[in-house]
Amino acid sequence: MIQANGPARPPLRVSCIQFEPQIGAVDANLARASELIREAAAAGSRLIVLPELANTGYVFASREEAAALAEPVPDGPSARAWGALAAELGVHIVAGIAERAGDALYNAALITGPDGYIGTYRKAHLWHRENVFFAKGDLGFPVFETALGKVGVAICYDGWFPETFRQLALGGAEIVCVPTNWVPMPDQPAGEAAMANTLHRAAAHSNGIFIACADRVGVERGQPFEGQSLIIGPKGWPLAGPASRDRAETISAVIDLAEAGRKDLNEFNSVLRDRRSDIYG
Amino acid sequence: MIQANGPARPPLRVSCIQFEPQIGAVDANLARASELIREAAAAGSRLIVLPELANTGYVFASREEAAALAEPVPDGPSARAWGALAAELGVHIVAGIAERAGDALYNAALITGPDGYIGTYRKAHLWHRENVFFAKGDLGFPVFETALGKVGVAICYDGWFPETFRQLALGGAEIVCVPTNWVPMPDQPAGEAAMANTLHRAAAHSNGIFIACADRVGVERGQPFEGQSLIIGPKGWPLAGPASRDRAETISAVIDLAEAGRKDLNEFNSVLRDRRSDIYG
Repeated sequence: MIQANGPARPPLRVSCIQFEPQIGAVDANLARASELIREAAAAGSRLIVLPELANTGYVFASREEAAALAEPVPDGPSARAWGALAAELGVHIVAGIAERAGDALYNAALITGPDGYIGTYRKAHLWHRENVFFAKGDLGFPVFETALGKVGVAICYDGWFPETFRQLALGGAEIVCVPTNWVPMPDQPAGEAAMANTLHRAAAHSNGIFIACADRVGVERGQPFEGQSLIIGPKGWPLAGPASRDRAETISAVIDLAEAGRKDLNEFNSVLRDRRSDIYG
Repeated sequence: MIQANGPARPPLRVSCIQFEPQIGAVDANLARASELIREAAAAGSRLIVLPELANTGYVFASREEAAALAEPVPDGPSARAWGALAAELGVHIVAGIAERAGDALYNAALITGPDGYIGTYRKAHLWHRENVFFAKGDLGFPVFETALGKVGVAICYDGWFPETFRQLALGGAEIVCVPTNWVPMPDQPAGEAAMANTLHRAAAHSNGIFIACADRVGVERGQPFEGQSLIIGPKGWPLAGPASRDRAETISAVIDLAEAGRKDLNEFNSVLRDRRSDIYG
């Protein structure tokens, strides 16, 4: 079981940047993201989350297009740009990126901080035509030890699988950063809030962790996105957002990651300890 | 993977009876539940769910009180009464009951149908002072093959554990009936919908199953309950409810359980098939 421990940490301002990447326009996307990261840092944020595939856009027409836009991590231009920005501003950045590693492409996210590159997560559960472009993530569900705390990463459809958050919580994650490009779900009633908001609130509550979701907005090659970026506390209640469905905006919350060490719901119950591993198949 | 199969089944009306059991008043609780079951059956319901501990009330003062109110299943008076009613009305009933088995007490639910007793589920995850009264469920997560379809059962705090619904869905459950006595959660903002609604909607969506939750209302020995009974479809959207927070009422929906056999979200993705068992720890 995970307990709050170590010296008290100062409150942490976390921001999720909801914006609209343009397909294929890597330089413009990096420039726009950089502006928004600088604004968030100026407002005091020290952990900043960007959407999935924030440098390239999402709806690739072919594997060739995806391959041409993908870059090595951390030694490609997008990763270097975000690394330099994190070092300059003294912030941690979690950003979705199309990663090229040898012949393989991954829908990935990197985490980089004031002292440089920290690590990469590769999306484990691929959505729709991502299966045409990308290889399935092969790095498991790493928890990154950072100066801020223990940070996990999940990407979009990963959040449909409760196993994702269980793995990260059991691995000690205090916050899971979610670069995402949420799309409407089957049979979704008009005007209904994104199913993803429900899924991530449930995951935060059931695991006693913070979750910070940065979604994109806009319609790209016919595919609409949901917006509604959301920061959730370890009891499952929203701390910031949901953001709008269709406008670029940054949502922020000031949090104490140590709260994720207190998994108790009352004097008898604690959400990880109460698991019945003895009868789960 | 589970596929829709077999002959088409007629639409099924399912009802969740939200009412207010009185602590210790077994005869009165059975009488009140019987009236409400008869009303639901008269309206066409063939699967009827009652709350957790529907025959006894919830807040036992001591293990002795719980033991005095608990009964054998299916050979105690409450189980026999529900069995007789199901046979008479030609319905299936899922009802929460305090079960005595030898020296052990269980927070249990029975399922009984037109042809008699079908089975018992014993709550796996015990909430708060239930740990003083009850033994942890030792029957796993059974899926009952009934004339209506494949029915799983979970009770209240079981729903806080995504493993519960995964086990049941992987076991073939098309619908999970949830007798429950939901209580407010820590840090719950005033007026916020019950966290349980979020948890069960997420579980229905992530597993492609129907979930029918029958909660109680009222305040018992100082403990308030949430109401907000809910019937959810296999894509996670509500089909009936949430019911009120504080009034007895029955919610109903007409469903096709075969929909739970179609787990696909699009031509590439299917919620159980897409699990990455190869990297879950």
